[in-house]
Amino acid sequence: MTRNIDLAVIPGDGIGPEVVAQAVRVLEASLHGSDTGVSLTEYSLGAHHWLETGETLSAETLESIRSHEAILFGAVGAAPGDTRIPSGLIERELLLKLRFSLDHCVNLRPSRLYPGTGSPLAEPGDIDFVVVREGTEGPYVGNGGVIRQGTEHEIATEVSLNTAHGVARVVRDAFERAAARPRKKLTLVHKHNVLVHAGHLWRRTVDAIAAEFPEVSVDYLHVDAATIFMVSDPARFDVIVTDNLFGDILTDLAGAVTGGIGLAASGNINLDGTAPSMFEPVHGSAPDIAGKGIADPSAAILSAALLLHHLGLDAAAERIEAAVEQDVQSRAGQGQRSTSEVGDAIVGALLG
Amino acid sequence: MTRNIDLAVIPGDGIGPEVVAQAVRVLEASLHGSDTGVSLTEYSLGAHHWLETGETLSAETLESIRSHEAILFGAVGAAPGDTRIPSGLIERELLLKLRFSLDHCVNLRPSRLYPGTGSPLAEPGDIDFVVVREGTEGPYVGNGGVIRQGTEHEIATEVSLNTAHGVARVVRDAFERAAARPRKKLTLVHKHNVLVHAGHLWRRTVDAIAAEFPEVSVDYLHVDAATIFMVSDPARFDVIVTDNLFGDILTDLAGAVTGGIGLAASGNINLDGTAPSMFEPVHGSAPDIAGKGIADPSAAILSAALLLHHLGLDAAAERIEAAVEQDVQSRAGQGQRSTSEVGDAIVGALLG
Ligand SMILES: CC(C)[C@H](C(=O)O)[C@@H](O)C(=O)O
Ligand SMILES: CC(C)[C@H](C(=O)O)[C@@H](O)C(=O)O
Repeated sequence: MTRNIDLAVIPGDGIGPEVVAQAVRVLEASLHGSDTGVSLTEYSLGAHHWLETGETLSAETLESIRSHEAILFGAVGAAPGDTRIPSGLIERELLLKLRFSLDHCVNLRPSRLYPGTGSPLAEPGDIDFVVVREGTEGPYVGNGGVIRQGTEHEIATEVSLNTAHGVARVVRDAFERAAARPRKKLTLVHKHNVLVHAGHLWRRTVDAIAAEFPEVSVDYLHVDAATIFMVSDPARFDVIVTDNLFGDILTDLAGAVTGGIGLAASGNINLDGTAPSMFEPVHGSAPDIAGKGIADPSAAILSAALLLHHLGLDAAAERIEAAVEQDVQSRAGQGQRSTSEVGDAIVGALLG
Repeated sequence: MTRNIDLAVIPGDGIGPEVVAQAVRVLEASLHGSDTGVSLTEYSLGAHHWLETGETLSAETLESIRSHEAILFGAVGAAPGDTRIPSGLIERELLLKLRFSLDHCVNLRPSRLYPGTGSPLAEPGDIDFVVVREGTEGPYVGNGGVIRQGTEHEIATEVSLNTAHGVARVVRDAFERAAARPRKKLTLVHKHNVLVHAGHLWRRTVDAIAAEFPEVSVDYLHVDAATIFMVSDPARFDVIVTDNLFGDILTDLAGAVTGGIGLAASGNINLDGTAPSMFEPVHGSAPDIAGKGIADPSAAILSAALLLHHLGLDAAAERIEAAVEQDVQSRAGQGQRSTSEVGDAIVGALLG
């Protein structure tokens, strides 16, 4: 072994552990016979862990996670009807806390329509784009409050915070990605006709940084119009840059349009290398199908590939991507396969 | 004439005047031979009017508009590249000012898949739902600001305001609509796992009012998940109740999924009758096709039908809806028709 990658693994709740188990197998198989080894440290966090211990993410656990090179994350969240867990607690105090504490400013969400996938669109066209979603500000900062709660005079606020620093770094990252892609196209998605202050900061930032990337063509869509194009002409997109909330919405929609959220992978990127980046499927913990062994692990597996790309292990990442593509293509006509059957097929392709 | 309805007409910019002209013809035809007459007062407002006069919407014009029974609105907004008009000015100072000043708390947006329409979904199913979008608060209030503008220390904020009063009235309206529909189902869409304060106000309000409507079944979706269902299973929806911004996004998406934004009508409803309600197509001013006579006037025509329903003229409204349905069905196989050809066909069906 000339290199050993040291990963934190946070399987989480619901289908999280099921899909992460397959992603870990695939990750190990992709490095099999290479000069790179993997060591894994599993962190038992999530709704189940909170119920047992009262910990969402302690300072000690966070520091321990911070010491790894990268993080593979499954999914977290309580089952909808579970009244023991305050709603959103695990999402905010674990998942969002990781994204914010580890300065995951770029939430990278590629969308591709794999040949053979059942897109719900009649004519899906050639879909291959990436959403660069801001990850550490916007309406996600948890800034807001409530007065006169429970009375007819209650007022609740939510404050979206947007900074030149926070916007510029994701916009620059998006331009760099656009410049490196064949179509070299960047679309800013916002709603600046209504959200004037934040919207204009985003626009001015895009205009300023565009000057450094004359080879990239730039356009703008309001978020409502962007959802229309996502359905009517998703192939028009190349790189989308957008804020935290719009990115959340658009990437679930993108997953649905490109043949299912079961294939949507993501990376929460710390751009300056001050903390580990974190890779996770876009889907949630799906309590309704948890424990049945039927969750599609492909999104988690593709997230492991993004992790390998991030660590410079591109050959291993590409082998995984090719194996998933192959697997997706071979699905046509087959019945539903179990989580482990999909893992077996991809591991088999990598080792075979 | 035993009754005369007194309408304000605001054709607006771009394709607005083209589609409103057809909607007015259809509206008049639908009442032809009945005991109801129509008087129309046209208000020339919008980007063109601002360029000529500097008026977006003066206090006098607003008071004059307020004196009518209802408003038929086209679309407003400058062409994207038009740098003479501050971006979003017309939208905020005219359209949103009307919605806020006239207390249009319910923004009603029905979605139906008309037989024969080309939905971009491979298997669209039976789609018939209505979005009850809050219209006078949320992130649309224009509350926010910027400091250190143009520097690397700039901070821009947007504040979403949500009140018990504002949320309760649209939630109650949504329950009433759900109770009157065959499926009696209400879905709250929000993002309460992240937007805790506003989200919990919405949830508590829905829970409280649900007790008055035991016959209505209630569920909840995060906005990101709602976009997935809008593509994968739009037939699951019956009544959706949601905030101003999420409603904006979901209804454009709904338009795309149900065969095109060219059919999406809306009503901005003043619930207590203190000011006229306003009916408008969901689409915008579409400067790219303005003046070509090819805009589909169906959304404006269906908005006129919503206006007639609102004024209790249900028979005339239903005649229009039947004629549009008929027209949409007869489109299959025909080439693109002009704006006035569609108007002719529907007027012909009403008078024939
Ligand atoms: C679980 C939730 C907080 C999260 C988000 O809103 O970012 C999820 O929807 C996602 O997209 O990763
Ligand atoms: C033009 C714009 C301000 C408006 C909105 O955001 O409400 C439009 O998109 C709509 O949906 O009616």
